[in-house]
Amino acid sequence: MEFLVRTENLLPNDTPDDVREQLRKGERERAMQLREAGILKRLWRVPGRNATVGLYEADDPAALHDALTSLPMWKWMDVTVEPLATHPQERS
Amino acid sequence: MEFLVRTENLLPNDTPDDVREQLRKGERERAMQLREAGILKRLWRVPGRNATVGLYEADDPAALHDALTSLPMWKWMDVTVEPLATHPQERS
Amino acid sequence: MEFLVRTENLLPNDTPDDVREQLRKGERERAMQLREAGILKRLWRVPGRNATVGLYEADDPAALHDALTSLPMWKWMDVTVEPLATHPQERS
Amino acid sequence: MEFLVRTENLLPNDTPDDVREQLRKGERERAMQLREAGILKRLWRVPGRNATVGLYEADDPAALHDALTSLPMWKWMDVTVEPLATHPQERS
Amino acid sequence: MEFLVRTENLLPNDTPDDVREQLRKGERERAMQLREAGILKRLWRVPGRNATVGLYEADDPAALHDALTSLPMWKWMDVTVEPLATHPQERS
Amino acid sequence: MEFLVRTENLLPNDTPDDVREQLRKGERERAMQLREAGILKRLWRVPGRNATVGLYEADDPAALHDALTSLPMWKWMDVTVEPLATHPQERS
Amino acid sequence: MEFLVRTENLLPNDTPDDVREQLRKGERERAMQLREAGILKRLWRVPGRNATVGLYEADDPAALHDALTSLPMWKWMDVTVEPLATHPQERS
Amino acid sequence: MEFLVRTENLLPNDTPDDVREQLRKGERERAMQLREAGILKRLWRVPGRNATVGLYEADDPAALHDALTSLPMWKWMDVTVEPLATHPQERS
Amino acid sequence: MEFLVRTENLLPNDTPDDVREQLRKGERERAMQLREAGILKRLWRVPGRNATVGLYEADDPAALHDALTSLPMWKWMDVTVEPLATHPQERS
Amino acid sequence: MEFLVRTENLLPNDTPDDVREQLRKGERERAMQLREAGILKRLWRVPGRNATVGLYEADDPAALHDALTSLPMWKWMDVTVEPLATHPQERS
Repeated sequence: MEFLVRTENLLPNDTPDDVREQLRKGERERAMQLREAGILKRLWRVPGRNATVGLYEADDPAALHDALTSLPMWKWMDVTVEPLATHPQERS
Repeated sequence: MEFLVRTENLLPNDTPDDVREQLRKGERERAMQLREAGILKRLWRVPGRNATVGLYEADDPAALHDALTSLPMWKWMDVTVEPLATHPQERS
Repeated sequence: MEFLVRTENLLPNDTPDDVREQLRKGERERAMQLREAGILKRLWRVPGRNATVGLYEADDPAALHDALTSLPMWKWMDVTVEPLATHPQERS
Repeated sequence: MEFLVRTENLLPNDTPDDVREQLRKGERERAMQLREAGILKRLWRVPGRNATVGLYEADDPAALHDALTSLPMWKWMDVTVEPLATHPQERS
Repeated sequence: MEFLVRTENLLPNDTPDDVREQLRKGERERAMQLREAGILKRLWRVPGRNATVGLYEADDPAALHDALTSLPMWKWMDVTVEPLATHPQERS
Repeated sequence: MEFLVRTENLLPNDTPDDVREQLRKGERERAMQLREAGILKRLWRVPGRNATVGLYEADDPAALHDALTSLPMWKWMDVTVEPLATHPQERS
Repeated sequence: MEFLVRTENLLPNDTPDDVREQLRKGERERAMQLREAGILKRLWRVPGRNATVGLYEADDPAALHDALTSLPMWKWMDVTVEPLATHPQERS
Repeated sequence: MEFLVRTENLLPNDTPDDVREQLRKGERERAMQLREAGILKRLWRVPGRNATVGLYEADDPAALHDALTSLPMWKWMDVTVEPLATHPQERS
Repeated sequence: MEFLVRTENLLPNDTPDDVREQLRKGERERAMQLREAGILKRLWRVPGRNATVGLYEADDPAALHDALTSLPMWKWMDVTVEPLATHPQERS
Repeated sequence: MEFLVRTENLLPNDTPDDVREQLRKGERERAMQLREAGILKRLWRVPGRNATVGLYEADDPAALHDALTSLPMWKWMDVTVEPLATHPQERS
């Protein structure tokens, strides 16, 4: 099932650059793994913000929760999840 | 997977009594079927309101949507759905 | 550019069935045309509601506006549009 | 009487790991006691968040307050409580 | 247990005067009965509005719901209920 | 005149225990004085929160402000005040 | 004591012109009386809206309520009232 | 001085086409006059909605109010006005 | 033109008393100057809060901005400004 | 395409004056470059706040995002972006 996931990154501004860079690198690597696993299907930036909108697919909310919390930035992110139902126009 | 479902019943106050009663009867019957199918697990009233909080279980959001729209009152209800993830304390 | 588009269908409950059915049929046909034109890329139902979340692509907000208002149901829909920026992870 | 209880865990991110782990352990133990006492009946995670939805039963709001404040994490939690009325479908 | 109850009266402005007056009279009589039964303890007007704030006491939310829905105006009222816990300063 | 007063206590979690205890003690003593002066008439806890709902009586908003700011915890409290009008049912 | 009073005029657009004009005339006359009685002290328009912000003075919220409900347009107005406390800079 | 003005057009869907067209024509003509008078400086559509964002210039809020209420559609529009201050970067 | 100005004072609670007192003194002095200049016309306290509602008059929003930012407390204040239009009842 | 961009500057109050001044200087210079590039078309202050409303033009949301994040103050700014569609009155 698919979910629309919004994240706001609240990492403090005074985070040292090397810590921030290491987190970003880990974030990108973990996101890539989630893409390869078919869990992260699309990702957009909210223009002007350190925030994203993502389209995820997971077996259930618990599996989605595990995927999201596996992101190194997760503990600094405010995340909201919205379930999406397949539209009849796309059932076939 | 489980969902928390809120409904507000917006059936107009000037609905004739027999129409209203027929809808309520159909609603109870359909709810009973959803209980027997294991889809509607618990139902509460929001005190003071013509509104409910329900605990549902369905295979995915599309199946939940089909169950909710099968309720005769659905077209007069404002419905919001929240996905729930199993808590590790309850996994076993 | 891509947009996230939410719609709530506010068609009155007392709309005659044939009018409603004609609108739905026209809606599906127009949506199909927008898909073929590459404007409507994905469409989901908000579970429990007569509402959708859609992913659209259009040259600019004016073109998106024209596409949305070409839907026969548009005048009964409450629509909100959110611009999406390509995420660097997906640039290549 | 039953209550729907939402919690958001606001424990600061820079809490030392051992303090955090001790709090989590105490939280699990106290939650288990509340389950055994029939006060905590169900607990879910809000997917993507350090947050929960719980179904509690207590004699009155003061007893519920005492149960919630007995949780070691309580002072870092933002908690909201909603009273639930038994639905006639479930009275028997 | 005590509850804080807010009501907004949404009776349409074009309600005939005799219907309105009959509803008001019935409302006052039922409110008086709820006072005598110890369920309605205090009632205030929200200044400037056709709205009230009330302090109610009932055994549980279901009993409160029954009391509120017994008011003749109930079907035109938007009602919200908040549970109140006895404060230690008032326990004795 | 009567006021409904809500407070949220925002005292930081890392406040030393002795400071916190001294504030609480002062708070209780001052609240007792306000009760004796007929200003604080009822006080409830918002279940699950470090928050209260209170019923106050004062000559005017300025007198109420002086009473509230005389509480030792005031500077850490988020306070909202709502004026209440005597309901005709209670005038006599 | 002084109050800040906001009104939104919700008189339906299809109100006959003569009814609307009669209401406006009555409204102006009653407002003038409230000014002369020292109850209505200032009145502004919210630019772009059929809405006002007013500064009122009344002995208590019940007296303010009586003044506001004496306005012929009252039953079509959405009114909110905010109590104001004299600022020490203006006490003398 | 400049104002940011938002409008939502709430003209009922069942308005006869000729009435609607006459209103639109009058709206365009009046808007053109406001442009020529230097009052309406820019106008955008909110994509997907029957709504606009406009940049207006007027001597004061009362003059802006008069301009907005001179639009034939005004009585069906929900309008909000935000004052804008010249930014030092643009003073010269 | 007149403006309704709301301020919330967010000066941290741990501000040293002498700093706080100096700011308050400067605030009172500057407010007095703004009164004498006819810019600050009325000021009220929001009861229970470290917050004010004020009635200001200035040539335009930029002049109002300059007046507000000249207050020594400004950088700790959350300020919102609402434009007010003269009501026809007060034009003469 | 054009965007309405709102910013709230959240730079902490205890930022040293020289850091703040350097940021402001860099901000002005970068804003000037964005003006010259035709990206920043208008900028206003929200009166009373350390906040702005801006009119931007960019090829797409990603280009706008790049422009906004190039501002030295960006990491301390809360930014919201709203897409604007050309109004037919301005097409020609």
